[in-house]
This record gives sequence, structure tokens and C-alpha cells, in this order.
Amino acid sequence: MRAAPVAARRVTATDVARRAGTSQSAVSRVFTPGASVSADLRERVMQAARDLSYRPNAIARSLSTRRSRIVAVVVAELGNQFYPLVLEALSARLQEKGYQILLFTTGPGAAGDPVIEQVMRYQVDAVVLASAGLSSALARECRGLGVPVVMFNRTTDDPELSCVTGDNERGGHRIARFLAAGGHRRPAFIAGLEGSSTSRDRERGFTAGLAEAGLAPPARSVGYYSYEGAAEAARTLLRAPARPDAVFCANDHMAIACIEVARHEFGLSIPDDLSVVGFDDVGPARWRSFDLTSFSQPLGPMVEATIGMLLEFMETPDLPTRRVVVEGNLVLRGSARLR
Amino acid sequence: MRAAPVAARRVTATDVARRAGTSQSAVSRVFTPGASVSADLRERVMQAARDLSYRPNAIARSLSTRRSRIVAVVVAELGNQFYPLVLEALSARLQEKGYQILLFTTGPGAAGDPVIEQVMRYQVDAVVLASAGLSSALARECRGLGVPVVMFNRTTDDPELSCVTGDNERGGHRIARFLAAGGHRRPAFIAGLEGSSTSRDRERGFTAGLAEAGLAPPARSVGYYSYEGAAEAARTLLRAPARPDAVFCANDHMAIACIEVARHEFGLSIPDDLSVVGFDDVGPARWRSFDLTSFSQPLGPMVEATIGMLLEFMETPDLPTRRVVVEGNLVLRGSARLR
Repeated sequence: MRAAPVAARRVTATDVARRAGTSQSAVSRVFTPGASVSADLRERVMQAARDLSYRPNAIARSLSTRRSRIVAVVVAELGNQFYPLVLEALSARLQEKGYQILLFTTGPGAAGDPVIEQVMRYQVDAVVLASAGLSSALARECRGLGVPVVMFNRTTDDPELSCVTGDNERGGHRIARFLAAGGHRRPAFIAGLEGSSTSRDRERGFTAGLAEAGLAPPARSVGYYSYEGAAEAARTLLRAPARPDAVFCANDHMAIACIEVARHEFGLSIPDDLSVVGFDDVGPARWRSFDLTSFSQPLGPMVEATIGMLLEFMETPDLPTRRVVVEGNLVLRGSARLR
Repeated sequence: MRAAPVAARRVTATDVARRAGTSQSAVSRVFTPGASVSADLRERVMQAARDLSYRPNAIARSLSTRRSRIVAVVVAELGNQFYPLVLEALSARLQEKGYQILLFTTGPGAAGDPVIEQVMRYQVDAVVLASAGLSSALARECRGLGVPVVMFNRTTDDPELSCVTGDNERGGHRIARFLAAGGHRRPAFIAGLEGSSTSRDRERGFTAGLAEAGLAPPARSVGYYSYEGAAEAARTLLRAPARPDAVFCANDHMAIACIEVARHEFGLSIPDDLSVVGFDDVGPARWRSFDLTSFSQPLGPMVEATIGMLLEFMETPDLPTRRVVVEGNLVLRGSARLR
């Protein structure tokens, strides 16, 4: 057990109020994110708090206000380029609003359910789920406890769940029409995780777009949204007798692995021998070595939509659920032939 | 205010114990990470808890045990390749031990002090600081409150602070001797953030190693540990009349920017016209397009050392502070000439 540092812990808001020459409720307001206090009062209270080594106890407060000012964020993994940026942007915006992120990581491809058991042990104000598995039953349980859940970058058929996604199906469709217009006859697809709604929706749009252009369904292989998985999927596709003339990868991270394998293991020239298209439009897509044509997922607007919903749902838990789709664009670069 | 879902909240450990045919203390043990219970008891209690929609309240428990089972992790940014992996590894290991990460982001180059004020509002059990700025005064304050602090990937002169770092100075030294042995006469250096101990220690070792080999101090430019900053720093160095024949960049992320600029803007061949060496040995260093020679920071052992210290300090806050240096190796690839 930790030895309690008695002297430091004994300082209370009353002591601080006395030293600052104000009331206890004024001290409380200074330490409540978003509460209104004058700059002068804030300065006096903070100085007194520093003098006395006083720290308000956000957790004790959460028991009386029923607010912990903690938002749980569940992510599968941080090894690609997209989720670290999502986490950074969510954290920055939540901190501005006086909330902190309690992070839960599930490992790639894992179900979210055991993690949700953990999440519910902490009295979080809301949950952002940016990971593949969460059963509808558990999500309903969260809602039953008055804890809003927003799914980020994934959807479900359950009408009781709110979500924010990019424009996955339209993006896949747009890429199919673009490749067909560029004269490609055998576009292939590298899927992410089979269970993920992003990969499924992108593939659905892609296959529909190819069909409209009179092309056959794509050869496909699964890359599991990982670099190594995608490299192996690319090898499988490029070894086939009827080699594809284009590959659409369900995210940029996999598209880069595909380019590396095509160029350095198969000696193919990009885009002359093979066009490669990704999805996300994150950092390395812009690096000159890859110059990746990609469909953008606008991270800023997606994060704004998520924060906005969370704040509304925390105020008013009975609002109807919502599904927000943030539009993206096809960003043309050098990795795919135009004709 | 959130409407309290009264029915759900009224379920207590006693209700669960009655339904599971066991005692309240057995229920409590099932919900205490690390406590010993039989598989059979765990299963009965979990089933009863599910039947009753019971959730133990970790926060209320923290008030009686003085443990919140929350570790604050402060990071500057997640835009490079190293810190997301650090966060993922720390989270996975802490979760195994029954702790969750409360995430604080400061933005690149920002001071950590205002964030620490925030950290102290939550009753965290420990703090991992993987960000540039934290004044010694505040760190002492944390220790005064019995909250252990471990600095990750940075050091300070303050003997009251514990830290875990890679082998920065020796790594820089090793790279200097390697480049000198390869016949390079004008190695340059791209620094990270001027205030960061990692960049300073790597540069110190590099400059010392060059001096031992009879070479002049390196031309230098600052890349701020960012891709764009490093690209600009590389342009400055490569435009100089006495162009460097090698560049050591204080991390891999900047080394990749340097390779991109050298190759695509200056038309230089790597390594024939210019050798480039990084530090970290993270993912993209292994991509064939970069094939980056780099000094490794073994993430696994660094995270293990950090977790080990945190757990010890949480048990016994008065242990003397410690400084752990995890050794790395020069990983030879194709981006630097051997002679």
C-alpha cells in the first residue's frame, strides 16, 4: 500500500479559500472546467493552491456530480498512420472541452467485448469505439446505464448505435470508375479485416463501380490492414497468371506495402506496369517515393462530428441516434495511370 | 445533468453475491485486477453480474483504496512512427496489470507544466512523461503527493526524477565512427527539438565521435522532429557550397524526409552521392524504398523497464530514483556507404 502523504492530502478547498480570501464555492468553480470565473479570482485561487500544494480531487467530485470528465476511447492498434492522428485530434479537442481520454487497446482483430467490460468499471461519461468488435448487446447496456457510445470509422446495422464514418462506399465506387476510365481491365482489391465495415463498404462500392463499367468482379486478397499482411496479399495477387493491372487497397498503409512489393520484388514500374490506389490520404501518401492516389477521409471534420455528438449526448442522453458520413475526395497523384 | 438510470445503478455487490451464492468479498475479489479467484467462482460471479447488469465502480473503490488504477501518460504528439508504438505497448502491458492509461497530449514543442496541473486533478497512481517540458518543481510536487513519475525517452539533471532512455550518446558516437570508417569527410547533423535531451545527447555523441576520427564538428540544421521541418533542414544543408557527404538525422522520421528531399529534389543517389543515417529503427526504416541504416531503440525492453519501475514505485514510493539506459545497436542497411 502507498503510504499516504498526510500533510499534502489534508489541504482542503476551505484552506485554499481562506488563503485566497474567497469562498469555498469560488474555489470549486475555479477547478471546474468550463465554469465562469474572473481572471483575477482565478489567479488568486491558483496562487493559494500552489502555495498550499492543493489539488482538487476530480474523482471525488465525479461522485457528487456524476461526471468523471473521462471519455473512454477504444482502439484496435496504433501501428498504421491513421489512428494515431485520430487519437491526437480527439485528445486535443476533448482537452479543450475539459475532458481526458482513458485509452483502451484491444490488439488488431480482437473483439471489443472484454474491453467494454473493463470500460464500464470506470465511471466514464462516454465511449468512442474505433475498433472492430462490439456486440450490440453490450452497446445497448452502455446506453441503459446512460453512457453514450459513438462508433468512429465503423458502422453497424444496429439502429441504437450512432456512428461517424468517411464516405466508404462512394469512395470505392469513385475509384472503380476512375480506374475503368484509365483503361484498366483487371483491377484487384486488397481487403482490410473481413469483419470490418470500412473494408466491406469500400469493397462493395468498388465492385459495383466495376460492374457499371462492364468489368468483372475484382480478384481479391486479404491484407488485414497491416503492412506485412498487405505485402503477402500483394505477392499472391501479382504471382497470379492473369496479373492485375491495378490494385485498390482498403487503406494507404496497405497501398504502400503493395507499391514496395511490386517495385522491389516484382520489378514493376508504378504506374506504367501497375496502378495502385489507397484510401485515407494520410502522411506517407504524399511522400514522393509513393505519390499515392488515394480517397481522402477528412480527419478534422470526422473528429468534430464525433466530439459534437458526444457533447450533445452527454447533455441529453435520450436524443435519437445519428449516423454521420463525412464526404471525401479522390486525390490524384502519380501512382495510378490516367489513361 | 444526466438523468441517473436509477434501476441499473441500484444493483450492488451484495445483490450479485446473493445471486451467485457467494460472499460480497468474493465478488469484490473477482473485480479486483490481479486478485486470486478460482475459475469456477469467477464464472458464477460474472454470470450473476451480467444477469443483473452489475458494474463495479472503480472510481468509488479508488477512494477507499487510494488507488484509481489509472496511469497518466503525457505525450507531445503522435505524428511520427515512434510514439504511437510506445503508447500501444505501454497500454497493452498496463492493461495486463489492471491499469488503464489516461492520455494527455501537449502538442509538439509545448511545455508540459499546464498539462501536469490537469494531470493532478485526477487521482492518478503514476505519471509517465514522454514529452519535452516538465519543470523539476512540478515533478517534485508530484513526488510530494506520493505520485511516482517516470520520464520515458528523456532525461534531466534533476536527481529526483527517474527515467528510461535508449542509448543516445553512445548511438551518436557509434554512427560518427561508422561514417568516418566509411570514408565520409563532411557528415552533417539534423537536430530534433533544441530543448530535447534525446537530440542533445545524440548530437553530443556524434560530435565527439567525429572529433576522435579527426573530423570537424558537423554542419547542423534543426528539423524539430517533424517531417516538414526535416525536409526544410535537408534543403538548407544540401544547398550549402560544401555539401555534406552524409547526414545523421536525430530520428528515422526525419531521415526519411531527408532521403525524399535528396533524391527527388536534388537528384542525389542514396548512398552513392549521400549517406543518410537515422535513429529509432522503426517500421519505415525497413521499407525497401528507404532501407535506412539506423541505431535501434528497443521499444519492448524500454517499455518493460518503465512498467517495472512504475509498479515498484507504486508499491514503495520512497525507493531511490533510477536511471535506466537500454542498449541499442547500429542496424546496417543500404542508405549509408560502407566505404
